[in-house]
Amino acid sequence: MLGRSLLTAKQLSREDIETVLDRASEFAADPSAAGDRHPGKLLALCFFEPSTRTKMSFETAAKRLGGDVIDMGSVESSSVKKGESLADTVRVIEGYADGIVLRHPKQGAAKMAAEHVDVPLVNAGDGAGHHPSQTLLDLYTIRENAGLDDLTIGIMGDLKYGRTVHSLAHALTNFDVRQHFISPQSLKLPRSVRYDLHEAGAHVREHEELEAVLPALDVLYVTRIQRERFPDEDEYQKVAGQYRITPETLDDAKDDVAVMHPLPRVDEISAAIDDTSNATYFDQAHNGVPVRMALLDSLLQTDD
Amino acid sequence: MLGRSLLTAKQLSREDIETVLDRASEFAADPSAAGDRHPGKLLALCFFEPSTRTKMSFETAAKRLGGDVIDMGSVESSSVKKGESLADTVRVIEGYADGIVLRHPKQGAAKMAAEHVDVPLVNAGDGAGHHPSQTLLDLYTIRENAGLDDLTIGIMGDLKYGRTVHSLAHALTNFDVRQHFISPQSLKLPRSVRYDLHEAGAHVREHEELEAVLPALDVLYVTRIQRERFPDEDEYQKVAGQYRITPETLDDAKDDVAVMHPLPRVDEISAAIDDTSNATYFDQAHNGVPVRMALLDSLLQTDD
Amino acid sequence: MLGRSLLTAKQLSREDIETVLDRASEFAADPSAAGDRHPGKLLALCFFEPSTRTKMSFETAAKRLGGDVIDMGSVESSSVKKGESLADTVRVIEGYADGIVLRHPKQGAAKMAAEHVDVPLVNAGDGAGHHPSQTLLDLYTIRENAGLDDLTIGIMGDLKYGRTVHSLAHALTNFDVRQHFISPQSLKLPRSVRYDLHEAGAHVREHEELEAVLPALDVLYVTRIQRERFPDEDEYQKVAGQYRITPETLDDAKDDVAVMHPLPRVDEISAAIDDTSNATYFDQAHNGVPVRMALLDSLLQTDD
Repeated sequence: MLGRSLLTAKQLSREDIETVLDRASEFAADPSAAGDRHPGKLLALCFFEPSTRTKMSFETAAKRLGGDVIDMGSVESSSVKKGESLADTVRVIEGYADGIVLRHPKQGAAKMAAEHVDVPLVNAGDGAGHHPSQTLLDLYTIRENAGLDDLTIGIMGDLKYGRTVHSLAHALTNFDVRQHFISPQSLKLPRSVRYDLHEAGAHVREHEELEAVLPALDVLYVTRIQRERFPDEDEYQKVAGQYRITPETLDDAKDDVAVMHPLPRVDEISAAIDDTSNATYFDQAHNGVPVRMALLDSLLQTDD
Repeated sequence: MLGRSLLTAKQLSREDIETVLDRASEFAADPSAAGDRHPGKLLALCFFEPSTRTKMSFETAAKRLGGDVIDMGSVESSSVKKGESLADTVRVIEGYADGIVLRHPKQGAAKMAAEHVDVPLVNAGDGAGHHPSQTLLDLYTIRENAGLDDLTIGIMGDLKYGRTVHSLAHALTNFDVRQHFISPQSLKLPRSVRYDLHEAGAHVREHEELEAVLPALDVLYVTRIQRERFPDEDEYQKVAGQYRITPETLDDAKDDVAVMHPLPRVDEISAAIDDTSNATYFDQAHNGVPVRMALLDSLLQTDD
Repeated sequence: MLGRSLLTAKQLSREDIETVLDRASEFAADPSAAGDRHPGKLLALCFFEPSTRTKMSFETAAKRLGGDVIDMGSVESSSVKKGESLADTVRVIEGYADGIVLRHPKQGAAKMAAEHVDVPLVNAGDGAGHHPSQTLLDLYTIRENAGLDDLTIGIMGDLKYGRTVHSLAHALTNFDVRQHFISPQSLKLPRSVRYDLHEAGAHVREHEELEAVLPALDVLYVTRIQRERFPDEDEYQKVAGQYRITPETLDDAKDDVAVMHPLPRVDEISAAIDDTSNATYFDQAHNGVPVRMALLDSLLQTDD
């Protein structure tokens, strides 16, 4: 079973993942049936960086379970401005709440914070580090659309900096999955991640172009290529254009390929995809609620 | 009946208005009796611009109905900063909530957003456009204080830019009302609004001075004249001074004239009015709760 | 009994304090037992200045009592930006809520606001003025750790500007307490506070060094010395260093001396103290919940 805190997707065994995903399926099937799971439980939301999706879906999840949240608010409106350390902040807040969700710009922040508190803590993003509840909702979405075994997935875009991608790739090594990574040369998977995947026995291939591998894919997971990674605008436009998905791009794909994206997107996926049956990214975002309900349900239970 | 979304006061028939106002009266008579109307329902508050009154009264209304809210927070703390489109933002959020309240600086934003979501959406202000729940609470306040038939109302101040005024004037054409508009020449009703009112068969008169028409008024609705509309401070002071309400101003008014204001006021109405029986603007603000309860009650019901 | 509003610790009699503290003890003993005390009650949080502890613990307290909060949000996201007066803001908000918690940068703001509203109002800090619920949680913590009679307390640090210190010192005059004030010459208690304490018959001593008085103390209450009080960095470092608590400092103290701090701390107390049995400051922060539950319980009751 999951321990008291979820800090990285690496701590999740195949069994952990399946337990959370199964429970999420139950919650998704009847969202209003869970209102008596955790009455009166309070979840503290500590977001030191902007968030819409993650914060709102944790809040929704807590409330759908019969609990509620208390929100630290923005850094500007908190004592952090007065120079308080993160350790002190979470030690104070654990006295108010039954669990903590933490997003922080510094890598390792969640791990450090978890060492200072006795309540369950979820890492909701620590800089270039981890964001394991995103990985769980990605896995849930993949399972719903294509299953997690005998799966061929393409992961495309910024593979160098995207924490989402690294966690997902690692978690997929628990399953029978062929992983194809598609990116420009300059945004390839870091050597350390590639090494980890090989160590875990993963089936991994890398490509600079989508074309050759597209017909084999059950899932195409697209991420944003950030303008600021490129020295000049022309270079960015050229690269970004090559990795943009349009209805024409999908002509050579399986009819039921599921197109995913962690959102927000800028223009990696054309709006013309939105109303096709391939568009899976809004469902993916919505899956944040049942998956985070299942996660909180598990963490808050260990608290009783 | 109201449809799934409330985008503009123009979509409200006399029957719609009366249904909402009647229900609001019931809620106002016994605010604590509604706690079991919508248990567990979640309303998403998406405010892309500052708000106190509208946001807090929607939040109060949702909670008094037994529901709750999830708040997108300020634009600075959301994914909007990362360049997400409004359409994408609301499509994600509809997966978390049973309804959306949207305020956005761009005219037409609510209409566009409503086309992208399946949950009920309330326009809580779209730039120079509409703010129909404000109109409903204005109508409720007028009805409580003077009735909506055989009514003589004066609407004074900035009639050119005030979206509140335009929506109210239009909604009043559903009733037997004589509308007097009082403003400096430079802030008169736009020609298009005047045309609409005449088309709707409204009884409309325009004035530059309050004096002549004041004795006939049952209701005097005052709005703020914004400093930035005037090229220099002297000109502003001269104009603003003419349209400022003091106890002396009301000497020639009916004893029970109801003085209204959408708030916030700066100094259009002297604080000396606050404790008179004519001061209706705080009640007007408070009426936001039962009126928005009635509105949400209607919209969330269509959701079942 | 407490009146409708809590504006300053000076309004609290010994009996008031004991009533709140006794009730807080009951809530602390069984936090989940209070969920049916105030179902449906709404507390408005109006924070015109940053806060973590005070705001989150009031929110937690309201929710643990079965109620909920509505949050004005930051000044930047409210109508205050449009030039609304504080009096108007609270008069509007009282129509939404069953009580108001107000923090405001201007001294006297809470008193003025309370005169304009009929719902209970708690002063959660008015600039250099008062913060009485902090005093109550300080008293609670002292009582839990050392009792409030036959007590010897040392209060150290910035005694000149700290509103927390002034309120606590005054409240302690209700009990049999020997108060020792330890600070650099430039940050001594203001003459007016010293005068008040003598008038109230308090046992008061002032010191520039902790050393001599430390062995006698049951409680050592430390506050932050702010850098900006000093003309240059060297001077600040010299002074701050003298009033910093380390495990070595405590060698000469009673074994069970309780070290308190209103938090946030910067480095007035070494992290090496955190895991000792003397460290009482995190408990002190956590005590904000039962104490504010007891306070709200009392104030909201008078509302029925």
